Amino acid sequence: MLTFERILQRIESEIAGLSFTNPPASLYEPVSYTLSLGGKRIRPALALMACDIYNNGIEKAILPALGLEVFHNFTLLHDDLMDEADKRRNKPTVHKVWGANTAILSGDAMLIEAYRLIGHTDPSCLREVLDLFTRTAAEICGGQQYDMEFERRNDVTEEEYIEMIRLKTAVLIACALKTGAIVGGAPADEAGHLYDYGIHIGLAFQLQDDLLDVYGDPATFGKNIGGDILCDKKTFLLINALRLADEGQRTTLLDWMGKEAFDPADKIRLFTRIYDSLHLKELTEERIQYYYEKAMSDLAALRVSPDRLMELRSVTDRLMHRKS
Amino acid sequence: MLTFERILQRIESEIAGLSFTNPPASLYEPVSYTLSLGGKRIRPALALMACDIYNNGIEKAILPALGLEVFHNFTLLHDDLMDEADKRRNKPTVHKVWGANTAILSGDAMLIEAYRLIGHTDPSCLREVLDLFTRTAAEICGGQQYDMEFERRNDVTEEEYIEMIRLKTAVLIACALKTGAIVGGAPADEAGHLYDYGIHIGLAFQLQDDLLDVYGDPATFGKNIGGDILCDKKTFLLINALRLADEGQRTTLLDWMGKEAFDPADKIRLFTRIYDSLHLKELTEERIQYYYEKAMSDLAALRVSPDRLMELRSVTDRLMHRKS
Repeated sequence: MLTFERILQRIESEIAGLSFTNPPASLYEPVSYTLSLGGKRIRPALALMACDIYNNGIEKAILPALGLEVFHNFTLLHDDLMDEADKRRNKPTVHKVWGANTAILSGDAMLIEAYRLIGHTDPSCLREVLDLFTRTAAEICGGQQYDMEFERRNDVTEEEYIEMIRLKTAVLIACALKTGAIVGGAPADEAGHLYDYGIHIGLAFQLQDDLLDVYGDPATFGKNIGGDILCDKKTFLLINALRLADEGQRTTLLDWMGKEAFDPADKIRLFTRIYDSLHLKELTEERIQYYYEKAMSDLAALRVSPDRLMELRSVTDRLMHRKS
Repeated sequence: MLTFERILQRIESEIAGLSFTNPPASLYEPVSYTLSLGGKRIRPALALMACDIYNNGIEKAILPALGLEVFHNFTLLHDDLMDEADKRRNKPTVHKVWGANTAILSGDAMLIEAYRLIGHTDPSCLREVLDLFTRTAAEICGGQQYDMEFERRNDVTEEEYIEMIRLKTAVLIACALKTGAIVGGAPADEAGHLYDYGIHIGLAFQLQDDLLDVYGDPATFGKNIGGDILCDKKTFLLINALRLADEGQRTTLLDWMGKEAFDPADKIRLFTRIYDSLHLKELTEERIQYYYEKAMSDLAALRVSPDRLMELRSVTDRLMHRKS
């Protein structure tokens, strides 16, 4: 079994080896740029780890794993354009550097490149991997659409929110694990358990993100604390704040959510104070713990020797207790 | 063998039967809208006709043919957004009705839907059809990128232009024919000849488009005459006008190409007069004839009985002598 670190090294070298030499260069420069910005590479890593569990090797999963990472970066590229985000990983976004049209078209080319890589899955399981990927990709578009619609709503329910982050974030993590399992030769039910495991860590992962935005350590978070608060992002915390607030707190929240001009520090302090008084940190941590335990019982259902799962467990633990 | 009319009926009923019932509805409404706007359905028709030649039936080609039509409509949706076009087939474009973000995301969902349909090609030839489609889709993105770059250039050569329309228009027609041939069980060299045939009719088709914009009959053309002239589109005619013009004509062309405010009728009259004096109608017709003859010799290389090609020949002839 390969360690997580070895798997990450392999992924970085494979990504560096993807060459986009077809003309026009102007179409593929933004693709290389996006892929070179880095990121946790968590999706391809999980795909390779899942393959390694059943196949004692990762080669069969390399191309589909790369396809999933290219696809993930495609969604970031188009999402940043739709969200008018200026920065991604501290660098200017593609549409800021090359303009909206190139961002649209280079994104399209990236989605096609993702399919090219996934299309090179071993023919014996191509159809299954392709079907799973296509279903997942469509779900992710749906998640982004919900996310954009939620921006204009103040009555998003917790249930709607969980469904949105399942679609936008969790299904790709689940798809990565299941893809690795399929190409690694896992029995169908085990591939299904790994998919469920992916959904549960994906949900926990996103809730962790919501939490870090408010309660993260500025020294290690990597982004500015309170970014979600400033743009009224409907996070798990804000949705529950609106649900649990008394009348006065609710009025304060809604007032500030409409404001155009304000001191950012004031708004962050005010929202955090309300979150504190409603014990939303604890509420969110409980929910993260709930999904974490579900994920662990998904793993427990696998009929592989526990030592084959050690690496996956340790990565999960690190993701759960991450600081950035 | 099915007639072209029967094939078109089948395509329309299949397209009407595509249902996008997955939530969110707001993501798929623009997809249904785009597909319902109509169009010639020439790509799926050619795929089905090619299949029919070798398989004496079209069933195996239905899903990939639909995938190619969905893909074609995806390119129109994103291209219209990039080109800021207000109308498509006399109806408002998707970004005019639903906004740019929905146009981006619904387009992405359409590209994924195209892959879903193509992914349901018979497993025996899935890999080959998928590879061909992916290569073609990437080429089409390249063609659109060149097209956008040509807008900002006045020195586009005829060779560059032909390469751009090969990528933007001809390769998808060629891909449709080859896809139908592959799923229909054609020998590899015959599928290749049909691909070449598609390239040649695709090039002729686009040059015909360029010609109709200037010399079409307003009563039957369906669009306003001179649309390409008004927006300085680098067509086969304008590129050759700039190449063949004397110094005075060249100055006139370049002057008017920079103008912001002018009487549209004046510009169209002026450009048409220059095109007339340079015999560009004849030059373009000759080139169309050149590609038409190449296409006919591609067909002549097929080892199928001539009666199996009658329908394809007659459609080609109609496309060559079309008025809209």
